[in-house]
Amino acid sequence: MTQIIKAGIVGATGYTGVELLRLLANHPNVEVCAVTSRSEAGVAVADYFPSLRGVYDLTFQTPDDARLNECDVVFFATPNGVAMKEAPALLAAGVRIIDLSADFRIQDIAAWEHWYGMSHACPDIVPQAVYGLCEMNREAIQTAQLIANPGCYPTCVSLPLLPLLKAGRLKNGMPLIADCKSGVSGAGRKAAVSALLCEAGDNFKAYGVGGHRHLPEIRQTISRLQENVADHLVFVPHLTPMIRGMHATLYLHLQDGTDPQQILSDFYADSPFVDILPSGSTPETRSVRGANLCRISIQKAPQQNVWIALSVIDNLVKGAAGQAVQNMNIMFGFADTAGLNSVPLLP
Amino acid sequence: MTQIIKAGIVGATGYTGVELLRLLANHPNVEVCAVTSRSEAGVAVADYFPSLRGVYDLTFQTPDDARLNECDVVFFATPNGVAMKEAPALLAAGVRIIDLSADFRIQDIAAWEHWYGMSHACPDIVPQAVYGLCEMNREAIQTAQLIANPGCYPTCVSLPLLPLLKAGRLKNGMPLIADCKSGVSGAGRKAAVSALLCEAGDNFKAYGVGGHRHLPEIRQTISRLQENVADHLVFVPHLTPMIRGMHATLYLHLQDGTDPQQILSDFYADSPFVDILPSGSTPETRSVRGANLCRISIQKAPQQNVWIALSVIDNLVKGAAGQAVQNMNIMFGFADTAGLNSVPLLP
Amino acid sequence: MTQIIKAGIVGATGYTGVELLRLLANHPNVEVCAVTSRSEAGVAVADYFPSLRGVYDLTFQTPDDARLNECDVVFFATPNGVAMKEAPALLAAGVRIIDLSADFRIQDIAAWEHWYGMSHACPDIVPQAVYGLCEMNREAIQTAQLIANPGCYPTCVSLPLLPLLKAGRLKNGMPLIADCKSGVSGAGRKAAVSALLCEAGDNFKAYGVGGHRHLPEIRQTISRLQENVADHLVFVPHLTPMIRGMHATLYLHLQDGTDPQQILSDFYADSPFVDILPSGSTPETRSVRGANLCRISIQKAPQQNVWIALSVIDNLVKGAAGQAVQNMNIMFGFADTAGLNSVPLLP
Amino acid sequence: MTQIIKAGIVGATGYTGVELLRLLANHPNVEVCAVTSRSEAGVAVADYFPSLRGVYDLTFQTPDDARLNECDVVFFATPNGVAMKEAPALLAAGVRIIDLSADFRIQDIAAWEHWYGMSHACPDIVPQAVYGLCEMNREAIQTAQLIANPGCYPTCVSLPLLPLLKAGRLKNGMPLIADCKSGVSGAGRKAAVSALLCEAGDNFKAYGVGGHRHLPEIRQTISRLQENVADHLVFVPHLTPMIRGMHATLYLHLQDGTDPQQILSDFYADSPFVDILPSGSTPETRSVRGANLCRISIQKAPQQNVWIALSVIDNLVKGAAGQAVQNMNIMFGFADTAGLNSVPLLP
Repeated sequence: MTQIIKAGIVGATGYTGVELLRLLANHPNVEVCAVTSRSEAGVAVADYFPSLRGVYDLTFQTPDDARLNECDVVFFATPNGVAMKEAPALLAAGVRIIDLSADFRIQDIAAWEHWYGMSHACPDIVPQAVYGLCEMNREAIQTAQLIANPGCYPTCVSLPLLPLLKAGRLKNGMPLIADCKSGVSGAGRKAAVSALLCEAGDNFKAYGVGGHRHLPEIRQTISRLQENVADHLVFVPHLTPMIRGMHATLYLHLQDGTDPQQILSDFYADSPFVDILPSGSTPETRSVRGANLCRISIQKAPQQNVWIALSVIDNLVKGAAGQAVQNMNIMFGFADTAGLNSVPLLP
Repeated sequence: MTQIIKAGIVGATGYTGVELLRLLANHPNVEVCAVTSRSEAGVAVADYFPSLRGVYDLTFQTPDDARLNECDVVFFATPNGVAMKEAPALLAAGVRIIDLSADFRIQDIAAWEHWYGMSHACPDIVPQAVYGLCEMNREAIQTAQLIANPGCYPTCVSLPLLPLLKAGRLKNGMPLIADCKSGVSGAGRKAAVSALLCEAGDNFKAYGVGGHRHLPEIRQTISRLQENVADHLVFVPHLTPMIRGMHATLYLHLQDGTDPQQILSDFYADSPFVDILPSGSTPETRSVRGANLCRISIQKAPQQNVWIALSVIDNLVKGAAGQAVQNMNIMFGFADTAGLNSVPLLP
Repeated sequence: MTQIIKAGIVGATGYTGVELLRLLANHPNVEVCAVTSRSEAGVAVADYFPSLRGVYDLTFQTPDDARLNECDVVFFATPNGVAMKEAPALLAAGVRIIDLSADFRIQDIAAWEHWYGMSHACPDIVPQAVYGLCEMNREAIQTAQLIANPGCYPTCVSLPLLPLLKAGRLKNGMPLIADCKSGVSGAGRKAAVSALLCEAGDNFKAYGVGGHRHLPEIRQTISRLQENVADHLVFVPHLTPMIRGMHATLYLHLQDGTDPQQILSDFYADSPFVDILPSGSTPETRSVRGANLCRISIQKAPQQNVWIALSVIDNLVKGAAGQAVQNMNIMFGFADTAGLNSVPLLP
Repeated sequence: MTQIIKAGIVGATGYTGVELLRLLANHPNVEVCAVTSRSEAGVAVADYFPSLRGVYDLTFQTPDDARLNECDVVFFATPNGVAMKEAPALLAAGVRIIDLSADFRIQDIAAWEHWYGMSHACPDIVPQAVYGLCEMNREAIQTAQLIANPGCYPTCVSLPLLPLLKAGRLKNGMPLIADCKSGVSGAGRKAAVSALLCEAGDNFKAYGVGGHRHLPEIRQTISRLQENVADHLVFVPHLTPMIRGMHATLYLHLQDGTDPQQILSDFYADSPFVDILPSGSTPETRSVRGANLCRISIQKAPQQNVWIALSVIDNLVKGAAGQAVQNMNIMFGFADTAGLNSVPLLP
């Protein structure tokens, strides 16, 4: 008999919300029974998202009406600062939580408060949050009650680094450069001039060069894996005129004798969602569009001692909603690929 | 026990080919056992289409090596003029064929030869071809051995008209205008200056105003359903700077007293892939991106006796590969939605 | 000696504002001496619009500080409802006004108030406003003190119709269909979810089918030129995923014996900004990108009595700021092409 | 009296060709009297490029018919390998040449032949070619008879480096990383699957990671300015889904005590086409769209000893045709900004 769990989504009117709804629609073990939105309460999901007509018969509810404490799992697809207020009561009610916002990603509360510009509402709960980078923390995720789903940049940057850091192969004290490019959906579905088609279209620019919130998150991951590397991270995000997709270009200094192709291939041999390409390949973002995949290549820069790792994800899937569903699958013992077997949409 | 059939795809290096591969990857009743390409024979499908890495373990073969006659069904995703040469032998071997090209769409051979600029290789076989507009010809499709899969424009234009024509509600002798807009993938995956990002991007234009190959195909459909309408069709296609998606804006003269909203809603009440929107709605192409759906609305022009029907499809899915799989499902008695339940990708 | 006039721009932070600034930067007869913005007062224009660094040394001012009454001409690039409040005082001070908003476009005050949802602030002044469709009203523009600069759709639709209507060649009582497609910049530079790259990108849809504000404006123009035609106009605008550009596809019924190619060519023989293409051509929007041009073709639908006119403009130039400068040139007796000789940007 | 020179363009059917035509159309000192194309000989320029209708009355000619030796200057907008064959005869006839292809960019013939995969047709002439990076070689350009117009990447990467290298401020032996992103027009106007809207659109990828032809060109420039730096250059180009625009993100190690903001500002104080932004700025590609500008910012990575320089150009203007016109202006003593004063098109 198939196990079916009840899922709720808080703040389901944004891009990670609608992406969760898309992925869960075909999940064999999940029934979405509550979606909340303060602003759209009373509106049918199928009216709000025309792509979901005929798929869901749900109506947005206020958080109060939604009886989220009867769910087995609740996803927070909310702006930063919401989950930290609502999580404690749900956790106390025995609900497992997967937070797609940044509220529980940084263990250093002072650092979190600095980068996110607010006081944390439940600092005592942060230590029990498991950082949901599935390929790093699988065991802890299985029993976690609270998952901090990673940010999109941290996922895209950390996956190629993870095996190398775990093996201690980064050179101490040398710069580790992450030049990253994101599609515009990373900015979310809020009215903002900078994300208009006429502003972000046919245009390319860097942003957050002086400091981006995902920098401390990536550093935290690095520092857990190898010493004396995290401090040397340089991270520059760029906005690229496309809807979905993220590309990281990493410039690495590895210790002599390292065979990163072998290390990566071995590490991810059994991972259904990380694909190590043959050396010399160049992954493209559309090769993962709509799918919970990270494709990675690594090669040496010509005539240099610098290694170049290229990594692509769909920022809304492996970089957000897909990884959240993957976390849920691990937490509840479902097949890893349940709900996540869609083939990338190309072209 | 699940029935599994063997499928082959001829000419699988184009956009309809890779879309068939995407859809069939998750089809519970189909094993793709042969994909052919003269130019790419010997190349692994997963190397050619980076989106299919890890999905297929197939290699492109020459048509000769591919043993297509051992398949239960063969899809032709080839340029016009190929299927008509290869179909007869396969039909003789008992293989059922779904041709995504135009070779068997037009019953009037002389008209076909005029519009397609070549002699037809097997005019005697054309009469047995069933026009695979599923919502029109479901019964004939069930037993067909040869399906002429409709063109993208004809699908998008015919679906809103079908119930009205069947009920005889178009006004005789009045112009029937189909102003259509297509994404660039309709031009296929061949090297052509006009389809370059720098030519077709950030640009909008009409084309084929003096005559387009889909005009006789739409007229043939109309003439089968109601008299004295087809000749008054005006069809102007336009190219719009997006990858997938097709939008038809139809200007109709209906007989007095017609309630087209009711007629359409009733006709498609049980159709899983045609969605009639509430009157006054405006369907958008992204609401069907990647899905085998046609969404339709109809309303009266303000203060006029002209009705405006709006119809959207993904030209590669309901307008090509998805409808082909739907035809296959009907032919083999599978569930209509088998392999076709993916939710539109939004954003 | 070159005549130099002083120009002011009210509300210069939007797309028509920055486009005015671009065009006037190279105008030999104009010095822009005031740009106003309530929200950005005190900000340097070159800081606000990075494209204008090194071009202007101006700072946004409040309307009060800007001494607009010392200008020879003031452009209103404001949302609807602003110019009607501020125009009377400037007119009284002898300043000539070109209003790019809709405040003075409709002579029927009741109709204006119905479509724009507000009371008109100066209905007594509306009659003196000249509708600035340059190719229609050149003489009145020369002496006008107040110009109502036409909307983008009305410009694109009216220019191909103008010679035919003037010659009385439209068939009475037959539908006149204007199927129009606009780039997203037509929606302006305000934060709105519907204009986000992730909403409007890779997407196509109709809007305003039940009624659009430009409908009464086009009807007003038609009714001034030929009787019994305006009421039969059907107008459906669509949003196409590009930044600039507008395309009108018109379906016309002309009186027997009409030679529209000749009529259009003759009418526009001396117009520097309207280009009649050879019959059978299909103008594309990028052929006018950034330029004050309208390119038009006309041909008969195959085997039909319906004529198809295709018309393209850059909605921000001939559809807004460019036509405004053209109006200014006519008003002040400058060369028609002064400031307007830039060649379209292709690709 | 205004001096007017005669200009010819060889191979004017590509993007750099049409861009030269756009810029020269408004140049006060140039008459374009010959444009050649073997494939389009006999076709009117205005028919081939719809954007140029009404601008040019020229017809493409074969090189033989074009009497290029009567020109004062000839631009080669040809694929690599053409100019080197035709230049010697024109030089002998006293014609000055500006080659937009790569034929004369690399002084090391063996290196050129290695990277471009052909034998050089006139190695003896290469030494007299002046590398046309205007801000580096202004004096030599004034008297040059043969200009090697720089590549787009080399221009975008070299301009921010030039003042720092000239001042000897790069740290010896440290990696110098140039992570570059280009719009698709950099691939030219040839039919290629990889540049189709459906392949390059909504997609981001690196390419040429194992070696790109612009690498030796950049290294040659660097090595002329400072020792022990060129060998440490790492260059990774990426393709970004837009038409025009190029963005370089440079990661630099500077000697202690360097004030790069000051060095750059001083060096370019009188350059009309290089704009140094305030520290902390992030230039965007659209801020230079259609204009002969390079905008640059430089800042320190947070808490690191790495400097980040950001540089944007329009690859077809300052990266190709605009710089070619700038070279011509310098060669013939025209105003630097003649023909180059168009304001960037935004949006």
